[in-house]
Amino acid sequence: MAKKIVTMGELMLRLSPPRYERFLNTDSFESYYGGGEANVAISLAQFGHNAYYISRLPDNDIGHSALNMLRRFNVKTDYIKMAGERIGIYFSETGVSMRPSKVIYDRKQSAFTQIVPEDYDFERIFKDCAIYAISGISPALSREARDFTLYTARKAKEYGCIVSLDYNYRSKLWSRQACDAFMQELMPYVDILVGYIPYGVDWESEEVNYEQVERAFLEYIDKYNLLLMASTIRNSISASNNDLYALMHDGTQFVQSNTYSIRVVNRIGGGDAFTAGLLSELLYGSSMVDALEFAVAASSWKHTIVTDHNIATREEILKVAKGNLSGNVER
Amino acid sequence: MAKKIVTMGELMLRLSPPRYERFLNTDSFESYYGGGEANVAISLAQFGHNAYYISRLPDNDIGHSALNMLRRFNVKTDYIKMAGERIGIYFSETGVSMRPSKVIYDRKQSAFTQIVPEDYDFERIFKDCAIYAISGISPALSREARDFTLYTARKAKEYGCIVSLDYNYRSKLWSRQACDAFMQELMPYVDILVGYIPYGVDWESEEVNYEQVERAFLEYIDKYNLLLMASTIRNSISASNNDLYALMHDGTQFVQSNTYSIRVVNRIGGGDAFTAGLLSELLYGSSMVDALEFAVAASSWKHTIVTDHNIATREEILKVAKGNLSGNVER
Amino acid sequence: MAKKIVTMGELMLRLSPPRYERFLNTDSFESYYGGGEANVAISLAQFGHNAYYISRLPDNDIGHSALNMLRRFNVKTDYIKMAGERIGIYFSETGVSMRPSKVIYDRKQSAFTQIVPEDYDFERIFKDCAIYAISGISPALSREARDFTLYTARKAKEYGCIVSLDYNYRSKLWSRQACDAFMQELMPYVDILVGYIPYGVDWESEEVNYEQVERAFLEYIDKYNLLLMASTIRNSISASNNDLYALMHDGTQFVQSNTYSIRVVNRIGGGDAFTAGLLSELLYGSSMVDALEFAVAASSWKHTIVTDHNIATREEILKVAKGNLSGNVER
Amino acid sequence: MAKKIVTMGELMLRLSPPRYERFLNTDSFESYYGGGEANVAISLAQFGHNAYYISRLPDNDIGHSALNMLRRFNVKTDYIKMAGERIGIYFSETGVSMRPSKVIYDRKQSAFTQIVPEDYDFERIFKDCAIYAISGISPALSREARDFTLYTARKAKEYGCIVSLDYNYRSKLWSRQACDAFMQELMPYVDILVGYIPYGVDWESEEVNYEQVERAFLEYIDKYNLLLMASTIRNSISASNNDLYALMHDGTQFVQSNTYSIRVVNRIGGGDAFTAGLLSELLYGSSMVDALEFAVAASSWKHTIVTDHNIATREEILKVAKGNLSGNVER
Amino acid sequence: MAKKIVTMGELMLRLSPPRYERFLNTDSFESYYGGGEANVAISLAQFGHNAYYISRLPDNDIGHSALNMLRRFNVKTDYIKMAGERIGIYFSETGVSMRPSKVIYDRKQSAFTQIVPEDYDFERIFKDCAIYAISGISPALSREARDFTLYTARKAKEYGCIVSLDYNYRSKLWSRQACDAFMQELMPYVDILVGYIPYGVDWESEEVNYEQVERAFLEYIDKYNLLLMASTIRNSISASNNDLYALMHDGTQFVQSNTYSIRVVNRIGGGDAFTAGLLSELLYGSSMVDALEFAVAASSWKHTIVTDHNIATREEILKVAKGNLSGNVER
Amino acid sequence: MAKKIVTMGELMLRLSPPRYERFLNTDSFESYYGGGEANVAISLAQFGHNAYYISRLPDNDIGHSALNMLRRFNVKTDYIKMAGERIGIYFSETGVSMRPSKVIYDRKQSAFTQIVPEDYDFERIFKDCAIYAISGISPALSREARDFTLYTARKAKEYGCIVSLDYNYRSKLWSRQACDAFMQELMPYVDILVGYIPYGVDWESEEVNYEQVERAFLEYIDKYNLLLMASTIRNSISASNNDLYALMHDGTQFVQSNTYSIRVVNRIGGGDAFTAGLLSELLYGSSMVDALEFAVAASSWKHTIVTDHNIATREEILKVAKGNLSGNVER
Repeated sequence: MAKKIVTMGELMLRLSPPRYERFLNTDSFESYYGGGEANVAISLAQFGHNAYYISRLPDNDIGHSALNMLRRFNVKTDYIKMAGERIGIYFSETGVSMRPSKVIYDRKQSAFTQIVPEDYDFERIFKDCAIYAISGISPALSREARDFTLYTARKAKEYGCIVSLDYNYRSKLWSRQACDAFMQELMPYVDILVGYIPYGVDWESEEVNYEQVERAFLEYIDKYNLLLMASTIRNSISASNNDLYALMHDGTQFVQSNTYSIRVVNRIGGGDAFTAGLLSELLYGSSMVDALEFAVAASSWKHTIVTDHNIATREEILKVAKGNLSGNVER
Repeated sequence: MAKKIVTMGELMLRLSPPRYERFLNTDSFESYYGGGEANVAISLAQFGHNAYYISRLPDNDIGHSALNMLRRFNVKTDYIKMAGERIGIYFSETGVSMRPSKVIYDRKQSAFTQIVPEDYDFERIFKDCAIYAISGISPALSREARDFTLYTARKAKEYGCIVSLDYNYRSKLWSRQACDAFMQELMPYVDILVGYIPYGVDWESEEVNYEQVERAFLEYIDKYNLLLMASTIRNSISASNNDLYALMHDGTQFVQSNTYSIRVVNRIGGGDAFTAGLLSELLYGSSMVDALEFAVAASSWKHTIVTDHNIATREEILKVAKGNLSGNVER
Repeated sequence: MAKKIVTMGELMLRLSPPRYERFLNTDSFESYYGGGEANVAISLAQFGHNAYYISRLPDNDIGHSALNMLRRFNVKTDYIKMAGERIGIYFSETGVSMRPSKVIYDRKQSAFTQIVPEDYDFERIFKDCAIYAISGISPALSREARDFTLYTARKAKEYGCIVSLDYNYRSKLWSRQACDAFMQELMPYVDILVGYIPYGVDWESEEVNYEQVERAFLEYIDKYNLLLMASTIRNSISASNNDLYALMHDGTQFVQSNTYSIRVVNRIGGGDAFTAGLLSELLYGSSMVDALEFAVAASSWKHTIVTDHNIATREEILKVAKGNLSGNVER
Repeated sequence: MAKKIVTMGELMLRLSPPRYERFLNTDSFESYYGGGEANVAISLAQFGHNAYYISRLPDNDIGHSALNMLRRFNVKTDYIKMAGERIGIYFSETGVSMRPSKVIYDRKQSAFTQIVPEDYDFERIFKDCAIYAISGISPALSREARDFTLYTARKAKEYGCIVSLDYNYRSKLWSRQACDAFMQELMPYVDILVGYIPYGVDWESEEVNYEQVERAFLEYIDKYNLLLMASTIRNSISASNNDLYALMHDGTQFVQSNTYSIRVVNRIGGGDAFTAGLLSELLYGSSMVDALEFAVAASSWKHTIVTDHNIATREEILKVAKGNLSGNVER
Repeated sequence: MAKKIVTMGELMLRLSPPRYERFLNTDSFESYYGGGEANVAISLAQFGHNAYYISRLPDNDIGHSALNMLRRFNVKTDYIKMAGERIGIYFSETGVSMRPSKVIYDRKQSAFTQIVPEDYDFERIFKDCAIYAISGISPALSREARDFTLYTARKAKEYGCIVSLDYNYRSKLWSRQACDAFMQELMPYVDILVGYIPYGVDWESEEVNYEQVERAFLEYIDKYNLLLMASTIRNSISASNNDLYALMHDGTQFVQSNTYSIRVVNRIGGGDAFTAGLLSELLYGSSMVDALEFAVAASSWKHTIVTDHNIATREEILKVAKGNLSGNVER
Repeated sequence: MAKKIVTMGELMLRLSPPRYERFLNTDSFESYYGGGEANVAISLAQFGHNAYYISRLPDNDIGHSALNMLRRFNVKTDYIKMAGERIGIYFSETGVSMRPSKVIYDRKQSAFTQIVPEDYDFERIFKDCAIYAISGISPALSREARDFTLYTARKAKEYGCIVSLDYNYRSKLWSRQACDAFMQELMPYVDILVGYIPYGVDWESEEVNYEQVERAFLEYIDKYNLLLMASTIRNSISASNNDLYALMHDGTQFVQSNTYSIRVVNRIGGGDAFTAGLLSELLYGSSMVDALEFAVAASSWKHTIVTDHNIATREEILKVAKGNLSGNVER
């Protein structure tokens, strides 16, 4: 059964040189609109859910184009305030082989950074909402966004929503200390935690110590009374080839997905596709094992898509999750 | 020595989102014209043969554009009837990694489905023709096309042409039963059979049982008094990477080609390139071993070409068939 | 105040060679989705109305892309049945100077041609609907579409909607007789008639006889008890330059708009933009004179837009309707 | 009745910045293949004639692409010798308003400049040929091309072909003296002369003195015993807008066409389209008046086409020649 | 003789939908870099002068791309400070017919707005500089930019440079009062004034009162002891067609240029091309009449160029200024 | 510290079908400008050096576009003579998998082939120049170019520059004998030799005999008193995948770099990027080991760039050289 899910965050204009060109030799940009939580909402809508998105966009043609993109992919735009001076922008250059992808942010002073609770009717938003999905990016953007994140998480809890957080620490946006301090305030309202890398776990080493991870997960689950904690583990062979799998714990069971070998088209949004896949399958009542497998399959599939949001139906991902990786022509 | 070869089938308009885009996020289509037997004819023309194509296209600008494409690649268009309401269309989305390519057909009621013998002068067509090449797709399209296929195969035989059939069973077009019934009528006129997967052979398993295949091939060769029977075997690692080799039997000798590792640009038409390569080399008088190697090299090369037909000279394929796989710059 | 308006018709895939190319020398198509009544709905949505669209589209990726396009431009898609085999297609080549634009239709057997009332809940559709807008194209497409047009016009009337008809006779789709016969059945349910050219009026002559037109309008208004009857009059100097104005009668007053000199980018959809402009302003309570001026300004503006639907806000058109034709940079 | 017509000249690679860009700010070139006499041949083929082209192209992929283009548009390529080092190239920037189009030639040492009679079988070429069409460009390119032009004109005459010459003096290629000297040798073999501007006629003045022109035409017709002499007269208002008409004399009758107002897409090849239109209609047996009107209509139409050759059917041009200039959508 | 000229201002990233698309239906942006004073510098460099540009750009790949664009067109970049957070951006949609071009600015907080004198060595900059060209845009951007404008104008004067000001009042950036107040401070340092519309002159009326204009010009020249005062007068028939001429006074002589009818490709930068043309010819020693004619011809030519800066050589503009408006192909 | 480096050679227009298309099915070319020594100069400029380029280009818009490209990437163009008839051209088709890249040269009679010392002021050029970098391509182009190469190498030596030679033997341009004879004359002026494959060393075998190579290197170093001798060794798995490493000797130490696995975007210019990387690091004072590692990393990186010149900063390459091959997104 399709459920109402609400996500919240900033939607930016993404400007990308056509494939293989660099910023320094391009003369045009392909334009997309992207943002972690919007990516989650779009993917959930494609999977058949009733997806809403809370945001703030400038009331000009660029803001309306962003809004239209969400509508095109069936995200409900009722909770988007059209106000503020500018849309956040990021320039994104796609890497290949040993040349990494490169992102230049120009998101300061964006409409979203001035988001305030007064513009939203939370009774209407959270009343019949199953999950409220947020990320660690929004609170790093401004004091207003930080307050808004905390306020809405608490509100969602009051209305009985499950709160899902993609931890997503970004060192360019705030310090570890600022992040930790904020998360201590936020975590009591969180039920599902994705993308957190516990201290002391050597994530990058080729031989991940699973016992260590399990211990760290359990500790965190206990501390914050979480329903679930999950993380993807990526082996980045090059900008063109990645291996990906995931680990998840629900306090009782510690599960690991298969590993997917990926030829990368666009890696941005891979984590958001994972979150969307996981939440979707949980709502569809899948088992922990199946939900995790679906989530990693969805994330892998996303790497083959030029946009930051995943364009895939539930049926397409299920085939991959069930092991059909041959890429045979469907005709 | 270049020979006259005639192929017959439907030529469709192929509409493809620019590379990596999906149907759901494209705003334009690259347009090509493709169809199995036309692909064979074009490839044969590139290899230096005198290639003719029997078909039926609507007498409008889209039909004429299709015709012009054949002319551009030196296929003789004398046997194409310009009549009927519409051109068959197929939408084709190119896959990558675990995301498969996807084809949506819109070919019902096409001009070709109403093809009738009265519009063609078979004396002129088959008199000096060395090979008549058809496929299992045409008879699946309509009653008229089925009758036409049978009629022309019989006619070609009367004029002493070698008849080549690419079996190419498509479950979306007709049932196994309907196909088998028709093929029982058709096979007595066939001399060269390509692309048939004998019942009871486990083609998909990684360890193909060659003895089993040989037995099945021999049985079929005996039953229908075939000159040759050949099949490619593909290991589809992903939509981006395929391994390919082929097996062939002439009733006496059972030969196997080398295996080619392919980075796939466009897989559609790979089988047609194989057929064209095989027929071309047989006409050029190559040995069975060399002809099969050439055919697989041609098929592999086709996978690097954006169109469905192979754009390659005989010299280019010969280099690959002789083992030059380095892709070194030619300058 | 924004009102609910429902339109009904076929949405087609439009395939156009990039600007100035012809069908015979193009290698790609820009893809849009267009259809007269969908164009009206989109334009109404841009003008701030609550626009719904009744249609039938195939349940494949092309059908869903068409659906997504409507969503993107804020048309409500609740009344679209996803069923049937194929989407209607039209190929459109843009003319310039004395070279006319050219359209090739491939819409037979489309999903829409099998539309049936059983798939729709008319209570829900027409209950609070102010205007139901249809055209003379739909009934020309199939028996089912003809029946559906008549059925829904009657239903709309029952629920108190104003029924608007764009006459739009197309000689390639049906005969004058068939059209007249059907219209005699339909007209009793029609309140606003657009695009009808009365017999005996020499529309094409440079010197239109306004008295003759007024008499013909009045006769028609009386016969069918119409609220309004309006028509645009186009002087096509070349494919690149058109002059446009309109006439309207409400039984009492006969008004004429200013004439607009247009440099044409894409003429298709000009009539739909006129209808949308007229209905929108009538709903906003504008005077007959102002509504007609707005409608012609909207139609003129549409000629500068590459899509078949008008992309314009009410504010933008109002400026033009008030005489600002200088095209000065807005910055 | 379709007739065999042979043209001869150089086919070049044309490299053009995408519309409105200049050489100095482009990063890509649209590639076409163009050359005056090839343009004539292609246009004749579109009008339904049996068009052949004598030329010389390098035996590399660029030369073969040029050849394929001719085939695509149904020009017979039997008389093209694949030999020589390079294809001639010209860079062409499209002007607009007061900014003129700009052409940079890079055609020295091209394959064509080394053309020799030994490579061609003139018995086969001219035996059943109705018209041999040449221009004043070829003899300006090299000594070999000059000799070849003279030799083939004489040969064509021997076989009873009508010889048509487009005078086309180009000051950058040779001096007036060199041109005049050569033309004195060539003119005795010429029957139809197009594009010659008689000395002493003030062609550029707005008020052309028709009596003066007629006298000059008659003098020339008498001197060389011509069947026909014709010229277009262009009023170039700007790079974007041209007016065009033509004058023709057959020794008895002096006729003038209507004047066409043209919005220019690409002016290059306008003269070739005129020649093709004139020769085509003469072969179809039209009257002098009709043939001239068709030729100017064809030339005008060509200005709306991006390629240098005219893409138009006889029916399309006949509509324009009969006065249908409205550019109304054909649907 | 080429002279050193220094201009100063903000260089922005310009993002434009491909021709005819609107912001609301584009999926890509052509990217250029533009800014009034940079446009002047580029045009001067094309005319053969030694052009320098003072500015401030962020030290990231987008800033460096902007820098590289200036280098490409031969502007000296020695006086550009690479510092600050972001590049100013403007989105620009090109109008056609009655649909105006539309510009959305996103330039707040740009690197340029924090420009300070400490980063520049004015001894080196102004020592051998003939003209320092500024505009009324820069001082409207920030307090720092206002101070910098005033400071550098004074400095330039000290070093004996002629100071040229393009008045260019923009109501969206500051109030009339703020502008007037600042200009009263700045004008004492100004020698050449372009683009100022005197109070009380009805500029927009079709019948400009030249005596009134002359009086206003003279008054201003006297008040500020100007060398020259000039303005273009535009009749904007539509976004696609403009007429343009100019008036100039040197305190003694009042001259008027011819009027140019322009088919507009991109109007932005037309004023900058005028300024560049005027300054260039004055430096080349042309008469007032010739310099003004050249300046208007240059401005007209600019309207045919897709970039905001003029791509034209002095020779090209001289031809137009001398009356060659036919746009005949140069070959 | 940045140093002045001078390179010399031919800059050509490169015309490439958009990715994956072949010459035979393209309708447009992406245009770049490339040439071995220009590639070296551009890369050096990106690494922060003061790079100059000696060349000869035609004084037309194509020549100036080539010049502008060099300026854009900060190469000093003071030593480029604008004269001669045409720019050299090469057509380049990008291979994939077993299909090799293909290059068609059209560079005969180019402006560069007529280069003469009289047009250059060598006192100004070499006075403060650290390195003069040439290649074995230039002397193969014409007698003038051969003389110029030898003359300038001697001149550079006189002024105390280090002379670097990329041996780069091309069998299509001259014979081994002609090359050897010339090199015997040139080598006495050479200090750094790159890209020479000693006779008798089996370079292509998978197991390179390092002792044999070292002996050959040492012999050559002794014979010509070289400072350094280096070569890359490529294992071309296919056109899409290459492995690359390098060997270098300075007479004392024989060093080998790591091997880089490369997914190839455009292989052309890989050797030039190696040379630029090596010279740059030597000038920056890096150790032999570090310089070689940097050079191979730079060459590998180049393979991911669409242009022939490397677009990379020193920082970007240093990261790769230090082992960061993960291609992780930089954000």
